[in-house]
Amino acid sequence: MPRVFLLAGCLLVFLWSGAGQVGAQQHLQGKRSFQEEMAALRGEKAGPDDSGDVYHGGGLSAYYTAPDKLFPGKGRYGQLFQFLPMVRWYDPDHYYNNPAFRPVSNVPGQYTGHECIVCHTVENPQVVAQWRRSRHGRPGEGKEAVGCEKCHGTDHERLLMPSYNTCGECHPQQLIGHRDGDRGSHAHAYHLDLVEDGCYVEKPAEEVSACLTCHAIAENRCDGCHTRHEFSVKEARRPTSCGVCHSGPEQYEYEMYMQSYHGMIYQGEAHEWDFSQPLANKNYKAPTCAYCHMQQGEHNVRRASPAYTFMGTSLVDRGAPRYKEIREWWVKTCQGCHSSRFARDQLEAMDEAVKLSFTKYREAMAIVVDLLNEGLLDPMPQDLAPDWRGHHTFSLLPDGHARKYNVSEIERLTYELLVDITDAIYKAKAHGAVYSPIYGYWEWAQDRWLIKIKAEASRLRRFSDIEKRLGITHEAYGFWSHGEYTDMLLGWRRK
Amino acid sequence: MPRVFLLAGCLLVFLWSGAGQVGAQQHLQGKRSFQEEMAALRGEKAGPDDSGDVYHGGGLSAYYTAPDKLFPGKGRYGQLFQFLPMVRWYDPDHYYNNPAFRPVSNVPGQYTGHECIVCHTVENPQVVAQWRRSRHGRPGEGKEAVGCEKCHGTDHERLLMPSYNTCGECHPQQLIGHRDGDRGSHAHAYHLDLVEDGCYVEKPAEEVSACLTCHAIAENRCDGCHTRHEFSVKEARRPTSCGVCHSGPEQYEYEMYMQSYHGMIYQGEAHEWDFSQPLANKNYKAPTCAYCHMQQGEHNVRRASPAYTFMGTSLVDRGAPRYKEIREWWVKTCQGCHSSRFARDQLEAMDEAVKLSFTKYREAMAIVVDLLNEGLLDPMPQDLAPDWRGHHTFSLLPDGHARKYNVSEIERLTYELLVDITDAIYKAKAHGAVYSPIYGYWEWAQDRWLIKIKAEASRLRRFSDIEKRLGITHEAYGFWSHGEYTDMLLGWRRK
Amino acid sequence: MPRVFLLAGCLLVFLWSGAGQVGAQQHLQGKRSFQEEMAALRGEKAGPDDSGDVYHGGGLSAYYTAPDKLFPGKGRYGQLFQFLPMVRWYDPDHYYNNPAFRPVSNVPGQYTGHECIVCHTVENPQVVAQWRRSRHGRPGEGKEAVGCEKCHGTDHERLLMPSYNTCGECHPQQLIGHRDGDRGSHAHAYHLDLVEDGCYVEKPAEEVSACLTCHAIAENRCDGCHTRHEFSVKEARRPTSCGVCHSGPEQYEYEMYMQSYHGMIYQGEAHEWDFSQPLANKNYKAPTCAYCHMQQGEHNVRRASPAYTFMGTSLVDRGAPRYKEIREWWVKTCQGCHSSRFARDQLEAMDEAVKLSFTKYREAMAIVVDLLNEGLLDPMPQDLAPDWRGHHTFSLLPDGHARKYNVSEIERLTYELLVDITDAIYKAKAHGAVYSPIYGYWEWAQDRWLIKIKAEASRLRRFSDIEKRLGITHEAYGFWSHGEYTDMLLGWRRK
Repeated sequence: MPRVFLLAGCLLVFLWSGAGQVGAQQHLQGKRSFQEEMAALRGEKAGPDDSGDVYHGGGLSAYYTAPDKLFPGKGRYGQLFQFLPMVRWYDPDHYYNNPAFRPVSNVPGQYTGHECIVCHTVENPQVVAQWRRSRHGRPGEGKEAVGCEKCHGTDHERLLMPSYNTCGECHPQQLIGHRDGDRGSHAHAYHLDLVEDGCYVEKPAEEVSACLTCHAIAENRCDGCHTRHEFSVKEARRPTSCGVCHSGPEQYEYEMYMQSYHGMIYQGEAHEWDFSQPLANKNYKAPTCAYCHMQQGEHNVRRASPAYTFMGTSLVDRGAPRYKEIREWWVKTCQGCHSSRFARDQLEAMDEAVKLSFTKYREAMAIVVDLLNEGLLDPMPQDLAPDWRGHHTFSLLPDGHARKYNVSEIERLTYELLVDITDAIYKAKAHGAVYSPIYGYWEWAQDRWLIKIKAEASRLRRFSDIEKRLGITHEAYGFWSHGEYTDMLLGWRRK
Repeated sequence: MPRVFLLAGCLLVFLWSGAGQVGAQQHLQGKRSFQEEMAALRGEKAGPDDSGDVYHGGGLSAYYTAPDKLFPGKGRYGQLFQFLPMVRWYDPDHYYNNPAFRPVSNVPGQYTGHECIVCHTVENPQVVAQWRRSRHGRPGEGKEAVGCEKCHGTDHERLLMPSYNTCGECHPQQLIGHRDGDRGSHAHAYHLDLVEDGCYVEKPAEEVSACLTCHAIAENRCDGCHTRHEFSVKEARRPTSCGVCHSGPEQYEYEMYMQSYHGMIYQGEAHEWDFSQPLANKNYKAPTCAYCHMQQGEHNVRRASPAYTFMGTSLVDRGAPRYKEIREWWVKTCQGCHSSRFARDQLEAMDEAVKLSFTKYREAMAIVVDLLNEGLLDPMPQDLAPDWRGHHTFSLLPDGHARKYNVSEIERLTYELLVDITDAIYKAKAHGAVYSPIYGYWEWAQDRWLIKIKAEASRLRRFSDIEKRLGITHEAYGFWSHGEYTDMLLGWRRK
Repeated sequence: MPRVFLLAGCLLVFLWSGAGQVGAQQHLQGKRSFQEEMAALRGEKAGPDDSGDVYHGGGLSAYYTAPDKLFPGKGRYGQLFQFLPMVRWYDPDHYYNNPAFRPVSNVPGQYTGHECIVCHTVENPQVVAQWRRSRHGRPGEGKEAVGCEKCHGTDHERLLMPSYNTCGECHPQQLIGHRDGDRGSHAHAYHLDLVEDGCYVEKPAEEVSACLTCHAIAENRCDGCHTRHEFSVKEARRPTSCGVCHSGPEQYEYEMYMQSYHGMIYQGEAHEWDFSQPLANKNYKAPTCAYCHMQQGEHNVRRASPAYTFMGTSLVDRGAPRYKEIREWWVKTCQGCHSSRFARDQLEAMDEAVKLSFTKYREAMAIVVDLLNEGLLDPMPQDLAPDWRGHHTFSLLPDGHARKYNVSEIERLTYELLVDITDAIYKAKAHGAVYSPIYGYWEWAQDRWLIKIKAEASRLRRFSDIEKRLGITHEAYGFWSHGEYTDMLLGWRRK
């Protein structure tokens, strides 16, 4: 029965077939879907979201249509996930060069060097222009240019897309450096973190594909930093090369650096620096990312880390005696411009800030674990959609799998306190970000999140105290476990 | 009766004339105002906020005084709103050049060209210096300079302020481009969006005037991009010209671009680029805003859009067959530097990300609409201040008028999910912002807001379940509909 | 007794010695600490956080260890706080040059000028290179270089670290300017704000030391802006020098400037400007921080302010008659590039925006003060840890001490509304940040915080209404006053 709302000053008619019972999650037989309700409200028709029609007001009357074409996953969990076709650009050895997937061009023939250039000067002029500016295109007297066929092959119908292996043929030292890193290095950003670990498999392909832009390029390709087709060392040395991926929550390194004295000097003066010069002390007034982390062109950026800490979410005292060697290496790095006493004082301040920062996380978790233990989370793990393994776990304890979605409010707040905030204190101090460890972000953000967590814990306990008195058994509402998007998570799809 | 609080360790005396009943919203006869209470607490006097006195601690003891002078609105809702005098700079044809408003200078006389310069070299030296550097001041051999009088007239007591019409006299092609755009173009940023639509009229003139800085300049003037008095094409071509307005929540285009590979290359290398060169492929290593959106100097920037989507808040599949022509135009644009296959894969990834992103908005709205329908919002629309039309509506449904204020917590969260976050996924993907579609902002922000909305929905339902059991009829507290600022909204002023 | 949770699909064993009763705050005899519980869950050992062991999953099984070495505080509250050794770099006259603290080097001997350079060219090559580029190292014909010993003394075992007094010996005019400012100037950023006021003493040394980076450098040293050892005027004139400290919440000046037309022009074109030129109108196309605030090299930056407003948190009408002189000074500053009418209109818009912005803060505080007055805050001041004086006060009223931590959710929200948001409206308008006063930040952030505050006030009242009906006396939960970090606050340490 339609239900009429009379709101002061305006007549709003809800054409509702059972008010309060029809949500997007209920496309039940005989009932109108949420999309149909919304279409009725707008006086429109509901329809598929790939029709080309414009659905105004937030697309409430559109039905989701999945992508036509997906590439199957690979590795340990390969049967569980799929990628959009853009994956072939980021994992070319598997998805582009692999005969099973290799795309076919409709231009036949075998071409090399200047034959390629004839057409592509018209077709993609910057590609040719960039190559001409590169060392590949201007090899120096007596040397031969590195032509298009070297990376892409000669068969135009079945072209190849280069991976680090291709580059490594001529640049073996850089390849060795790149592949040498332990976990936490570029060389593990994709396969270990993404394909073998499973932490990204839960979401739809449309979202996981986006993760690849950084995760896969970092591992599989060299043009993440030396962008094609100039492959410029000068470009790769700039902090902007690193900033493409190392910015934003969880990895604010670019912003940290930019806010430091080092970064401010870079911002103000780097247009006067000659980045074609090696990353040696005499060539740069202030350090850059690569100046410290890729000394003498070292391509294993993990060489500078005392321990693997999952981006700073593990606690370790980097000033402990066992890390003396790497600490002295850092002091020596700073000594190009600072006294060793200054460097040691600053690094010690970092150590102490890091240790202290975890006291706030423990204070928060003690509150949250008590709630979990007493069954007071709203929802409890069992009231959420299952995780990608089909389990119902609290994501921040060892048995769980840390995640940012499909969790309760307080679980997400606590995740943020650790992964978005506490880890940033280490990064801020390590990069000399002056205001960051204190203001808004980080130290004060920790204080802020601690208050949010306590406020939510207090609400959950007050509700429970009242409900106990009244004999009400609260059960988590159904929207926590089901909904149009939530129903697409892997946990449900596997069931 | 004064009430005394004894807080452990400190004596805090509240001189309260009826504790808990006196809020800022109750300036009742015989009762002390909030300002007087606060003044008593500080041992000060309450007073008007235009006195020049400093009111410390947040100005709690000051009374608001409205601006002395306001310019009346115009257009369909002109009788409802007013502007501060700064409007005359941004809508000069109506508020400056219009005889009813034209400001009077106390310097009499008729002047042209070098006569102007004599005084203004002293009075505003940069104005003259910029003009001298401009094409107007250095017209080239055999041509005449474009002097001050061309734009400002010759009567110094009644000077003119140029609008696009003035510039269009000599630059007709650019004028045509600028005026040609449909809704969503610069040419409609002010009149259609602001003056004829009514969505900005609700707030006090002091705030609405700020909106004009972008909305009116974009439509009415050319110096939003070609800043006076150099009117440099070189300057206007830079992303910074666009970034003045196209940055921040709801229109993060500048930040999106800056985070992309394109933007990072721009940041690192653009000081070596010659922006006096046309926006052609061979002149720029990476694209800029204008490179893509103003090709060949096209001043109708809407030409590149397949459909009008209210900044991305409407859902549309831009890859649908009916948009083939504009899609191919974009592929061709990318082809300057990329293969068409790469371009298509990236654009398809954008289409899929956009479609998926709306599933989260629908999941959220299904929850919120149920609450609305069951009368469980706190406050319900009828408990808020009336909107500018005098109506009480839920702002996110067709009958409402989307707004960010004077709404309930969950209504604001849902608005943010759509207007600040979901629309940004389209913009991130379209501009190649690498981390943005995933981290912190946008994809993960959507997940975050979905949790916030569910958590608030759960609280509202738990309260209601408890209150029902107790036979309590919850009524929204009075502060939702009244308060010092809220009482200034147009909804109340019209009553 | 251990307690077993059976969660759907996964067995999670909590080895809990009294579920729900053991929090991080309870290291009671005979009970396992939170760390031990967490270690058991991971199958690890709990241990000290300075061991060098990596504690994964957020360091839950680590015990905090305080820094080995702290420097005692000084000034009025000196007995209450301590600093990490990094303080000696930021307050060198007290902590470095003071014989009680002066660090000892293990290199004996007396050295001057080129004797120093012999070793330090190897030891810290950039230090020497920077000095060589400086006016000190290239004094000009017939003048003597200013050698290392001038600032650091000659006794290598007991070197000195220069403060502003050292620089002032040769640069008396700049010293006078720097020291001349009233409260709110650089000359009071450390001693008055930090050492004599007590507002920073509450937190552990590890955090307070971070505050010093800006607060102490600004007051005590000249190389906060003229970085060592080049001490370049060219560098100091750039906005990046100011941005090191003047960015982020509470002091977004750098971001405000960067978002304005002025800042966008700077961003796009400043690489073409010659910053070795004086800050005169003819040398710069757009103003910079120093161009306006340090005219003719004035080092007292407070000269440009009509009144001291605690970073904009006090309300004052800067357009009031009594500030005519300083207003005219500003109009004159703008007149280098703008008409005086334009300048006045913009400054008036700022005045009106500021006045209006405080109506929202008053609306919020009226709601919050009512809650305080009725005892409905959760927690009430007496339920929190004591402040640094041992008192329990509401931080936003005159008797309290505004703080961002150890407060209730609604108190923090209200603090943010004032200190992070309302003050930013003044700064946005003063710096011409175009979108900022409106979008996301500031005007709309005010609206957003007002909704958050009302929503939280509504929850607190609904809980109270229900509890009253049930005869429940709500008491704030213990986690508000105690916890691993909270127990380290000065309020507790003094008890």
